[in-house]
Amino acid sequence: MTPGCDWLPSLRVILVEPENAINVGSIARAMKNFGFEKLYLVNPVFDSFDKAYAAAMRARDVLEKARVVTTLQEAFKGAHIIVGTTAKPGGPSSILRQTIPLREFVSSLRWDAEYALVFGRESTGLTNYELSLCDVLITIPASKEYPTLNLANAVAVVLYEFRMAFESGSMKVRPPSRETLEIMLKYVDDILARVDLPQHKKRRLSLMARRVAGRVFPCGVTEEEALYVLGVLRRIRDMLCG
Amino acid sequence: MTPGCDWLPSLRVILVEPENAINVGSIARAMKNFGFEKLYLVNPVFDSFDKAYAAAMRARDVLEKARVVTTLQEAFKGAHIIVGTTAKPGGPSSILRQTIPLREFVSSLRWDAEYALVFGRESTGLTNYELSLCDVLITIPASKEYPTLNLANAVAVVLYEFRMAFESGSMKVRPPSRETLEIMLKYVDDILARVDLPQHKKRRLSLMARRVAGRVFPCGVTEEEALYVLGVLRRIRDMLCG
Repeated sequence: MTPGCDWLPSLRVILVEPENAINVGSIARAMKNFGFEKLYLVNPVFDSFDKAYAAAMRARDVLEKARVVTTLQEAFKGAHIIVGTTAKPGGPSSILRQTIPLREFVSSLRWDAEYALVFGRESTGLTNYELSLCDVLITIPASKEYPTLNLANAVAVVLYEFRMAFESGSMKVRPPSRETLEIMLKYVDDILARVDLPQHKKRRLSLMARRVAGRVFPCGVTEEEALYVLGVLRRIRDMLCG
Repeated sequence: MTPGCDWLPSLRVILVEPENAINVGSIARAMKNFGFEKLYLVNPVFDSFDKAYAAAMRARDVLEKARVVTTLQEAFKGAHIIVGTTAKPGGPSSILRQTIPLREFVSSLRWDAEYALVFGRESTGLTNYELSLCDVLITIPASKEYPTLNLANAVAVVLYEFRMAFESGSMKVRPPSRETLEIMLKYVDDILARVDLPQHKKRRLSLMARRVAGRVFPCGVTEEEALYVLGVLRRIRDMLCG
């Protein structure tokens, strides 16, 4: 995990509208502690970069290099898998909030990929729309009485778990390109468009496809395998359209 | 992990001279997040309980019930195993700072015991004297470039790891009493006192005995086994004295 060189696996931390400067500084510090340096701030609303720098301590450089962007899509560019985080897992019937416990997800990963970890606002987390953009949602197992961790603590715990997994050396499979995955999900949508189902069910199925792919693919699906699936989906699509 | 009832395994968090009110509040919150509530503050030096309460958010009760004490010994009373934390592991030849990576230690635990987790000051950690009082030292694997986590982040990561282990249900062995362990270590010292060795080597061996016991015993040594070892040590001691 030497900074600057072309190492994989890697990760980036994306904070959506962070509100508290001390948290942001503390997160920069936690990133450096665990050997990560790519920080994205989406429309930050915290009041003072000075306070953030003070909290970052010896990780000032992580904050200085942080990229401030205005959309999640910008922050996703170049990442292979988008991992959202939530303290509010849905029930078994909730597709949108179908979450995997942190360790269960991380220990299953085999992709030598760039992971994008998305964390929401201190006050309200990620919106439903933002959650729908994520390939997979993870949650930190916590007390039912008070499951919402402080943002910086949550990032620290997630980065710790990823570092342990990265160090285990189990992530060796080169992932498909992000484009291959997106085309695959596009074909799923094309197919669903031609199936006789109510619109809301199609939306659910579309999101479900993304969630299943987000959960299963990073366990080791290769570019070759993804292209094979892509080919089958294209044939089905073409048959339904033809 | 229901608060108030006599559940085991359990843990307490001991903060030695914490300096930052926001950290203390954030730690109270992390404790409640992971289902723990026993907080000890040894000679706290932070400036404002109000700031700590603000940072604790919905974990105000953990702070309210925190016990403020003046010595580590008071904070240890009733605990079975004293786990110190350090960001500065010693080399292989350092007995005092012989540390175990967090997960390696926690995943080996089999004692259905009360664990005392000791965290040092934000600025300087635990003193050598304080480290010498701990049965075992753990460390969070981190970047060599910047291994020192923010105190609240460090506590959150350690509590997360303990919660995962507690929930796995692997901790079922009733531990020996703290007295049995202390008498055993006392016998080791008595024996060392009669062996022809320089004083500083005896001190090293005494600390080493504590560290080995702290590492090995929680993996499942029972009261019966401890008493058996105790009996052998007493015989050796009596023979050397006789």
